[in-house]
Amino acid sequence: MKSWIYWDNYKEISQMDSKLLTPGPVPVPDFVMQAIQRPVIHHRTEQFYSFYLDLLKGLRYLFRTEKSVGTLMGSGTYGVEMMMGSLFRKNEKVAFISYGKFSDRWADYGQLLGLDCFDWKIDWGKSPTIKEFKNFLDKSPELDGIVLTHSETSTAAILDLEELAWEFKQKNPRGIILVDGITSVGAMPYYHDAWGIDASITASQKALLNPAGTIVFALSELAKDKLLETQSGDFSNVYNFVKMAEKGSYPFTAPVQLLYGIKAALDHIQQRELPAIWQACHQSSRIFRKGLQELGGKVFPEKASDSLTAFYVEGKNQDEIRRKLQEKYGWILSGGQGELKGKIMRVSHMGTSTAEQMVNLLKDLGELL
Amino acid sequence: MKSWIYWDNYKEISQMDSKLLTPGPVPVPDFVMQAIQRPVIHHRTEQFYSFYLDLLKGLRYLFRTEKSVGTLMGSGTYGVEMMMGSLFRKNEKVAFISYGKFSDRWADYGQLLGLDCFDWKIDWGKSPTIKEFKNFLDKSPELDGIVLTHSETSTAAILDLEELAWEFKQKNPRGIILVDGITSVGAMPYYHDAWGIDASITASQKALLNPAGTIVFALSELAKDKLLETQSGDFSNVYNFVKMAEKGSYPFTAPVQLLYGIKAALDHIQQRELPAIWQACHQSSRIFRKGLQELGGKVFPEKASDSLTAFYVEGKNQDEIRRKLQEKYGWILSGGQGELKGKIMRVSHMGTSTAEQMVNLLKDLGELL
Repeated sequence: MKSWIYWDNYKEISQMDSKLLTPGPVPVPDFVMQAIQRPVIHHRTEQFYSFYLDLLKGLRYLFRTEKSVGTLMGSGTYGVEMMMGSLFRKNEKVAFISYGKFSDRWADYGQLLGLDCFDWKIDWGKSPTIKEFKNFLDKSPELDGIVLTHSETSTAAILDLEELAWEFKQKNPRGIILVDGITSVGAMPYYHDAWGIDASITASQKALLNPAGTIVFALSELAKDKLLETQSGDFSNVYNFVKMAEKGSYPFTAPVQLLYGIKAALDHIQQRELPAIWQACHQSSRIFRKGLQELGGKVFPEKASDSLTAFYVEGKNQDEIRRKLQEKYGWILSGGQGELKGKIMRVSHMGTSTAEQMVNLLKDLGELL
Repeated sequence: MKSWIYWDNYKEISQMDSKLLTPGPVPVPDFVMQAIQRPVIHHRTEQFYSFYLDLLKGLRYLFRTEKSVGTLMGSGTYGVEMMMGSLFRKNEKVAFISYGKFSDRWADYGQLLGLDCFDWKIDWGKSPTIKEFKNFLDKSPELDGIVLTHSETSTAAILDLEELAWEFKQKNPRGIILVDGITSVGAMPYYHDAWGIDASITASQKALLNPAGTIVFALSELAKDKLLETQSGDFSNVYNFVKMAEKGSYPFTAPVQLLYGIKAALDHIQQRELPAIWQACHQSSRIFRKGLQELGGKVFPEKASDSLTAFYVEGKNQDEIRRKLQEKYGWILSGGQGELKGKIMRVSHMGTSTAEQMVNLLKDLGELL
């Protein structure tokens, strides 16, 4: 089997023995943990500014962009909601494609912000097709923006971001495309500039192999111009983070230790190169799904993301299988969320979830079934 | 000299050799760094819930409260602003005592939130007296709340929180007292319940000896009742964090590694006991100020906080002294902010800033002057 696997070098650098396979948080490699322990420095120093400018270069590589990038503190939800609040004004017409728990959340938050929401609800497990999307756009007025969840972590479905972004811009050249790239950026092909994305966001505890608590983002010129200039003390407006990042500075106390960790991961990603990492993720998912099929298991979404697999075994109690996988073998997977509670299991293909680990997981899963 | 110093045991447990003496971030002791490196666990597990409930017990000890406590992600500004946005509604009458950069910031944010702000501006370096405060309250209508900055980190001044809170509640029994305790909680006597505080907030990189990125808070029953119930996906409303904390849970992906660090600090604080830590902080400040006076230096604020000292040496270039302290001896102090830029230096008395370190710093400062 090994001959056709893209065999990666993760063994040398990460907690290869960790059996934590939840689609975030992922195990944090030792080299990231070591970076986090470096001595504390103050964030209003030249030492910090030059470090942060270097980190931002790594972020440009990650997002495939030459535009503005930056970091925030919080989980993925903080990031997407801060960005929504910063980029969209009350009563603006903003579209949402809701096809799972997280994309639903952004639509709910749009309501809370007082946006004029055009919410396209799709059954969980399905993904929007280009044809349907064109119809949706035809029925909608001119839009000020759209929020797209590239990889829907709750259903493990993916949407064709490149194509959807293209179609959206044909109709709404001045509309802002805001992307939740939380289980996509760093795990699969993602091109902020080439695809015409205006705001891309991901969180540290996914393909960035870091502890939860940091958000990273990229912005197009269009998005940057639209950020509302506010008082420097407003924590929830991304403008201050972007403006100050130009000189390597941070509007509030910077989470220096967390940023050390992000920098270490970005260095690693640049050294290993993105296509190799995307491919490792892809291989992990394909090996798992192939083996799963042989065991009689089924992939839940119609169009599955590379970064995680949602699956079930017909006629079985999914939570029971998951419990046994942990008790008997130590594997930690996630269950379903919301309406999928008890109906699926979810396994990560990011970070330390290598092809080899998938082979081992499948062996143990086979024993159980 | 040593005979009258309350001699603490910090040498054994922390980066005693660190010369970082900024009033946040402070050096992170090894036992905190080690805790942060513990293996990643998922936040939707019994393992996390029992860990988090234990952590919350430690927070109750820290704040001296039996009420609700919780954690958020971000810097101190995130914490105070999220709390303001969660506790105060548009057009509510809220008072502010602005006596430095941070207390000014909360008043500005009050404007941004659309509060009916009663902003009492005091010269930087001064603190409000009880008599003046009574006059201020007499001239104000009945208030829905007040935001008080216990220790104003920019000027190193302190206000008499216990007395001000008492006076405020005499006039406004239903008004919410929100306290920025960022350089106070854990560094000096602070009693959330006994003083009748409704919302207390502090940040990780101060007396909690942790990397920046985590906020901790305590809420009275009055404050808890006032939190507006919103959609579960709203990151900026503290309600969700409080509600879910009751069962040890977290509304979003929890920053598990950061929380490991906070728990380690809280364990340490409980073991060492708060009065001993408050006393160590007090001693560090008194030894520094006594020595400073002997060298001809002056403490800047009229009523100085125990957690840091803002000072200057007349007729000298303060930034030049600071630069030389770092270049020649490695000491890292902060300068002034805003209108105090270039006019003062600031030194921390929190965490690893021991009495012994102050003696060493004074020796080197004496050489320079």
